[in-house]
Amino acid sequence: MFEKILIANRGEIALRVIRACREMGIASVAVHSTADADAMHVRMADEAICIGPPPSPQSYLSFPAIISACEVTGAQAIHPGYGFLSENASFVQVVEDHGLTFIGPRAEHIRVMGDKITAKDTMKALGVPCVPGSEGGVPDLETAQKLGAEIGYPVIVKATAGGGGRGMKVAHTAEEMERAFQTARSEAKNAFGNDEVYIEKYLTTPRHIEIQVFGDGKGNAVHLGERDCSLQRRHQKVLEEAPGPVITPAERAEIGKVCADAVARINYAGAGTIEFLYEKGEFYFIEMNTRLQVEHPVTEAVFGVDLVREQIRVAEGLPLSFTQEDLQISGHAIEVRINAEKIPEFAPRPGRISQYHAPGGLGVRMDSALFNGYVVPPYYDSLIGKLIVHGRDRPEALARLARALGELIVDGIDTSIPLFHDLLAEPDIQTGNYTIHWLESWLKERYATP
Amino acid sequence: MFEKILIANRGEIALRVIRACREMGIASVAVHSTADADAMHVRMADEAICIGPPPSPQSYLSFPAIISACEVTGAQAIHPGYGFLSENASFVQVVEDHGLTFIGPRAEHIRVMGDKITAKDTMKALGVPCVPGSEGGVPDLETAQKLGAEIGYPVIVKATAGGGGRGMKVAHTAEEMERAFQTARSEAKNAFGNDEVYIEKYLTTPRHIEIQVFGDGKGNAVHLGERDCSLQRRHQKVLEEAPGPVITPAERAEIGKVCADAVARINYAGAGTIEFLYEKGEFYFIEMNTRLQVEHPVTEAVFGVDLVREQIRVAEGLPLSFTQEDLQISGHAIEVRINAEKIPEFAPRPGRISQYHAPGGLGVRMDSALFNGYVVPPYYDSLIGKLIVHGRDRPEALARLARALGELIVDGIDTSIPLFHDLLAEPDIQTGNYTIHWLESWLKERYATP
Repeated sequence: MFEKILIANRGEIALRVIRACREMGIASVAVHSTADADAMHVRMADEAICIGPPPSPQSYLSFPAIISACEVTGAQAIHPGYGFLSENASFVQVVEDHGLTFIGPRAEHIRVMGDKITAKDTMKALGVPCVPGSEGGVPDLETAQKLGAEIGYPVIVKATAGGGGRGMKVAHTAEEMERAFQTARSEAKNAFGNDEVYIEKYLTTPRHIEIQVFGDGKGNAVHLGERDCSLQRRHQKVLEEAPGPVITPAERAEIGKVCADAVARINYAGAGTIEFLYEKGEFYFIEMNTRLQVEHPVTEAVFGVDLVREQIRVAEGLPLSFTQEDLQISGHAIEVRINAEKIPEFAPRPGRISQYHAPGGLGVRMDSALFNGYVVPPYYDSLIGKLIVHGRDRPEALARLARALGELIVDGIDTSIPLFHDLLAEPDIQTGNYTIHWLESWLKERYATP
Repeated sequence: MFEKILIANRGEIALRVIRACREMGIASVAVHSTADADAMHVRMADEAICIGPPPSPQSYLSFPAIISACEVTGAQAIHPGYGFLSENASFVQVVEDHGLTFIGPRAEHIRVMGDKITAKDTMKALGVPCVPGSEGGVPDLETAQKLGAEIGYPVIVKATAGGGGRGMKVAHTAEEMERAFQTARSEAKNAFGNDEVYIEKYLTTPRHIEIQVFGDGKGNAVHLGERDCSLQRRHQKVLEEAPGPVITPAERAEIGKVCADAVARINYAGAGTIEFLYEKGEFYFIEMNTRLQVEHPVTEAVFGVDLVREQIRVAEGLPLSFTQEDLQISGHAIEVRINAEKIPEFAPRPGRISQYHAPGGLGVRMDSALFNGYVVPPYYDSLIGKLIVHGRDRPEALARLARALGELIVDGIDTSIPLFHDLLAEPDIQTGNYTIHWLESWLKERYATP
């Protein structure tokens, strides 16, 4: 069993891990940059050690600084949190070479899932559903039309050498295929000097649904249902919920089993998230994240489990503390990300917190490293807190979220709190009727931004 | 349905009710004394109205002030919280006479349960177990010995006219009965001029176990298991937990059914708590509280319900939103009462809060009306907050409590926080091995106080 764990991170996620360590009787070591000397994670850990100046490459991303901090403090294991070194296979190798334990999956799994093409091939071979398509270049219109009929319209024709939207054409019907195919080829030829195109199913109203999995590294794994994270701006999640408003118990059980079986077969260890686009009852694999997600608390709320504790236990070689049958969903949870940003520009707003007051009462969880007088530094991610609510059902969770947001005080800087007040007034949010495109469209309309 | 509710209370419980109202879309009216003009419940309610100066009889206990506040604001119902007017049958009558709704049981039930002897007779008739005894005076030693054998030793012989410990003698065996009986009689004669004595079973290691019940006022009722509130000082609860560390599922189901059936038979409406002493598998009725308890959040945590919402629903005439089968215990919850008191004297310490920081993270709920700069007034109860933790089991809840206490900052005044740090270091607290006498003995030893 670990006696001391070093947390190679900062902010609310460092606090999250320190809290789990404290509850497990494990000593915690915080590392920090010179810019974070007064940060909450430094104050709350049992020990703290400075690992260099900002920006991150000189401190939070520095292998030697973090390994040295372990050696100096006698920490036996490293929890990477999310971001920073959490999905860096080379770092995992270095950690293991020094006789330390990385609290996360093995380097090989991080490496495989870190490459989109290898990840997709691996998942497909493991039976995870992917976007159907041509699997390589489509030589002629006849093949394209045959594929279109097989896959089902709409489909998208994309330049193999492409990017940035050029050489991409959608065919909504068989009739549109000829024109889409020819146009895409000719655009591809002009833009990239290569007219090869491939074909994929085109999703018009996809939701982002991700499945939380947990493996013991020895061939056993479970799933903890899904999170719906469709509310995104520029691929950044803004609000997450569990369970997904449109996922049925049968869909959950089926895709969950597929995901748990897949990670079990590769002896995956620890927490992982398999991300999908979801449309009309079908799941399409996007990528796998081989770490704890920012939005893990909504899963913790509805399943009543502690995912960080479980990560540490698995890293210690212990079996999973729950079986699939133990994992029953209770109620509904929603998380909103409180960012130090000016709305609607989403411009970062570091600065001094003149007043911080966390919401309280039934069904409210606040994960934040804020305190009165804290200065949000300009060097890092703008996430300064996560407000998570849990209710008996989605309407209760939404009402609780509105209530708790009303209690939350973060004065002195601009934050994303007003965004959520506005969002909660929207009928689509109240009914759960949104896709991955909803938020950006709404932002444009609501705030008349470009 | 209510559109506006007046909360006839202050502090954390006023906040608790305001939060439920907000989540239900009901407008809230705070009432306050002049001493509470800056209080959090005043700030957080939709409306606030001053009802007089401290002390309480001139404001929070004033029938006309509160009824007038309802009339002025158009509130249709009154939630009394706990304490103050929450168990005042005359107030309930006045509320109803003014065409308003009291959110709580009917006046007759408050009246019956407010009188200890009537309450016991009523409960006994309803099948609730009471302390076995002679039911009236015992004329002679022969009868006393017969009763002792029936009830089972130890028994206590008490002066009918007695009080304050005089004329009370314990007989641990049949052999001790003669002496106990004669001594008690002679002490009673000398002290009260009346030598009549009665006999009751004597509990040596009782725990305080209370059953949460909920009735719809129409003959339906459920129970929500027990809370163990044995840790008391001068009959004031200090720490409460659910489920009770020594109560078996079978015991819970049995006593729970007895309690639910009893309140169903009298058409009890809303939340109620039936308090027992518990020893060696047997429950002995003490009293019934016809209101929400301070410690209701531990029940909310393990059952995943909102008891205040349910109170409001029942007052609106709605059926219970859960059946007995819906109510399954999940995990373990503990509440500690944060008081503005100097430990170990427990002397009140009102004053200015220079810094307040609530604990956060998984499984932590803070119910408090504190904020930075708030001045705790000297006129009221010293309770300034409740920290409630929920874990998968009792050890996890205890570890979480220690962790959360370590994060809680209440600077500027003395509080009971250090008491809980000390308590959590005790093996008896860790194992749950305590009776209603444990805390007072421990306080004497630990702090060498009289």
